[in-house]
Amino acid sequence: MLRPVDLLRKKRDGGEHSREEIASLVNGYTAGQIPDYQISAWLMAVLLKGMSRVEIAALTDVMLKSGAVMDLSQIPGKKVDKHSTGGVGDKTSFILISIVAAGGLTVPMISGRGLGHTGGTLDKLEAIPGFNVNLTTEQFLKTLKACGCAMIGQTAEIAPADKKLYALRDVTGTVESPALICASIMSKKLAEGIDALILDVKTGSGAFMKQKKDAVHLAQLMVETGQQMGKRVAALITNMDQPLGATVGNALEIMECIEIMRGEKNPLSADLIELSLQLSAWMFYLTGKTNSVAVGLELAQEMLDTGKALNKFRELIRLHGGGDISVVDKPSRLPHADHKIDFKSPSDGYISGMQCEQIGVASLVLGGGRQKKEDSIDHAVGLVLHKKVGDAVKKGDALCTVHYNGGPESENKLANAMEILGTSYSFQPTPPAAVPTLIQQVIGGE
Amino acid sequence: MLRPVDLLRKKRDGGEHSREEIASLVNGYTAGQIPDYQISAWLMAVLLKGMSRVEIAALTDVMLKSGAVMDLSQIPGKKVDKHSTGGVGDKTSFILISIVAAGGLTVPMISGRGLGHTGGTLDKLEAIPGFNVNLTTEQFLKTLKACGCAMIGQTAEIAPADKKLYALRDVTGTVESPALICASIMSKKLAEGIDALILDVKTGSGAFMKQKKDAVHLAQLMVETGQQMGKRVAALITNMDQPLGATVGNALEIMECIEIMRGEKNPLSADLIELSLQLSAWMFYLTGKTNSVAVGLELAQEMLDTGKALNKFRELIRLHGGGDISVVDKPSRLPHADHKIDFKSPSDGYISGMQCEQIGVASLVLGGGRQKKEDSIDHAVGLVLHKKVGDAVKKGDALCTVHYNGGPESENKLANAMEILGTSYSFQPTPPAAVPTLIQQVIGGE
Repeated sequence: MLRPVDLLRKKRDGGEHSREEIASLVNGYTAGQIPDYQISAWLMAVLLKGMSRVEIAALTDVMLKSGAVMDLSQIPGKKVDKHSTGGVGDKTSFILISIVAAGGLTVPMISGRGLGHTGGTLDKLEAIPGFNVNLTTEQFLKTLKACGCAMIGQTAEIAPADKKLYALRDVTGTVESPALICASIMSKKLAEGIDALILDVKTGSGAFMKQKKDAVHLAQLMVETGQQMGKRVAALITNMDQPLGATVGNALEIMECIEIMRGEKNPLSADLIELSLQLSAWMFYLTGKTNSVAVGLELAQEMLDTGKALNKFRELIRLHGGGDISVVDKPSRLPHADHKIDFKSPSDGYISGMQCEQIGVASLVLGGGRQKKEDSIDHAVGLVLHKKVGDAVKKGDALCTVHYNGGPESENKLANAMEILGTSYSFQPTPPAAVPTLIQQVIGGE
Repeated sequence: MLRPVDLLRKKRDGGEHSREEIASLVNGYTAGQIPDYQISAWLMAVLLKGMSRVEIAALTDVMLKSGAVMDLSQIPGKKVDKHSTGGVGDKTSFILISIVAAGGLTVPMISGRGLGHTGGTLDKLEAIPGFNVNLTTEQFLKTLKACGCAMIGQTAEIAPADKKLYALRDVTGTVESPALICASIMSKKLAEGIDALILDVKTGSGAFMKQKKDAVHLAQLMVETGQQMGKRVAALITNMDQPLGATVGNALEIMECIEIMRGEKNPLSADLIELSLQLSAWMFYLTGKTNSVAVGLELAQEMLDTGKALNKFRELIRLHGGGDISVVDKPSRLPHADHKIDFKSPSDGYISGMQCEQIGVASLVLGGGRQKKEDSIDHAVGLVLHKKVGDAVKKGDALCTVHYNGGPESENKLANAMEILGTSYSFQPTPPAAVPTLIQQVIGGE
């Protein structure tokens, strides 16, 4: 075996690892043959010295092959997925999976739970009474075959190397490496056995990547890595300087998605609708379902307008352990909080900015998210926005409504959330420049 | 407690730690409260991002105070020591400790064992039959009082943080950080309770620091750190492009030192004698025993020429568990190898260079050193040099004599050593420029 310490010294000194060297470290660690104190030092060296594109592709492939790759060969047609780097109010998955599956593609979506200020897709799904995100592989395949889409959590079989490495990165200050982020995301997504992938790389005050250039860099790495591995991959750089859509919180977000698919018009949902349609359009285009993104956009709009997407979402709920499909017709049957209170504007003017991460934290402290992995979630709580960046407001106008529950610590939680909201909005006397939802496309060197 | 992961992120991003932060990490690790995988990632960040002078002084002080500091207050007069960064044939300690103690100072020397191509002071002492390097603290103090010098191994009480950190650095590629080297050396040396310290920082093919600039940088860090901690500290940058003196190997090196103190003249020992006298002179000067290094040099020469140093060495051996003092009068009573064979020059010309580290490895493979910590040492084996850099040689002249022992693997060991020697010398037709033993002084900003 290659001596781990020699490989650490090589990366420390800025050297480029061979595929064999990366496999030796990652597989040795996953098998418990290399101790975590050597891998954590290596991860820090990788973070500070970087990795070449060739190293990143090798790392991704080694992590992918550390576990099972889904065999979707028994399901006809193209398989495609979307991955988002995470944001506040980010709920495109529920809309686009319904649109794309209604359009004839298969979407085998494996998602995560929320930690920190961003919500988790699985937590949001579990706001639907009876929805089971823990399907067996057999149930997952059966659901995919039956309705073209399924949404589950990561299984132990998928990329176990990533699971072990991520846990170590989390406690050693080595999360923020573009190379490691890229390999982590791509190894998990490509283990789904997909043909194509659209990446939603968010930038702004509520995103992991606060700077656009960092988002573009990560997007390029992921697109190139996917392409090197023979997949059709593209990325959209999208705005996360304010929450996406009109709601933040698990049940509230599902409700907003259902309302959109029901055709109910809330002007504050415009950015969410636009992004969901764009991502769907790219999924149609990348799989060759349509010859262009523009035609893909028409198809996506059609699936939404005709109610086919809504029907697909109903089917999705029914096939996940018999979730309560009545929420599709009566979204009010979703869990709702006991109490509501408006958060009011402290001044006249235009909203010039929202501290998006803070707004995510406000929902979190109400009980909508986790500060530690062990925390349980209150699906009903959250925020309903009434104003977003660029809107004119008068002092005393409701900027958002806080949905909260009674119970222990209830008053403290509310006070904490209100205090956070109090520092989250900024105002100016004149209308600010409009911020586009879509900032840039990254399509790599196809 | 400060969260370790936040401190790792701070150093990763190039931040400067407060003393409190450093204490939190180092003391938490030493106490077993912070896991090694976090500290190894931190060590890698320190290696790659560096530490300020203030951070290094704080780290040194925290490591020093992780254990006991020797209380030498019951011993009158100034206490002084020397530290060498290690080299091949480096045996100045035995000569200078005898000179300096004979000159009236106290030298409480705590040393290490050899690992890799450099020999260890303790291993060399144990070549003297009966010599005990494991004195209790009480015996150590008694010996210091009785003869002004003592030589022991590191105790569990001295800088336990360094012991734990060094073991982790060794397996995580984080040995080579000037900041960490400085703190490791200075914390251990200052725990001896000394007033002054002379550092012998070696540079060249047999040194840890191959480049002079790296040696000077480390010397500056150590001198400034010592001064910040209120000690008189200086450093000599010295040449390690060839072995120091005429011998490499434990008993052979002790024999050479005794011969020098007996006044026997071997021209190949000239560099060793010069450096031992210079280091002694600085020890006299730094403690105020003499008003200048030049006067210190005269005093050192006097101690050597009058036999007072030799007598001190005899006393030192007697007081360390009743070592065999007859070796001082009859060095031939030291262990000697069963067999000798000359390594002969393959060509005519002048020796233009010696791969000094390789020559250390040749002695090591004969059994004179350790490749792993568990290896035992054969004190008798080693090399006696007959030619050094700049000497004229004819093809077939003995360049050195290999002392080796029979036993298992004996032939393999010899063949291995001869092969290494075969690639260790280089020749040229004209005399090379002379290389000085002393390259530079570093006296800091006193």
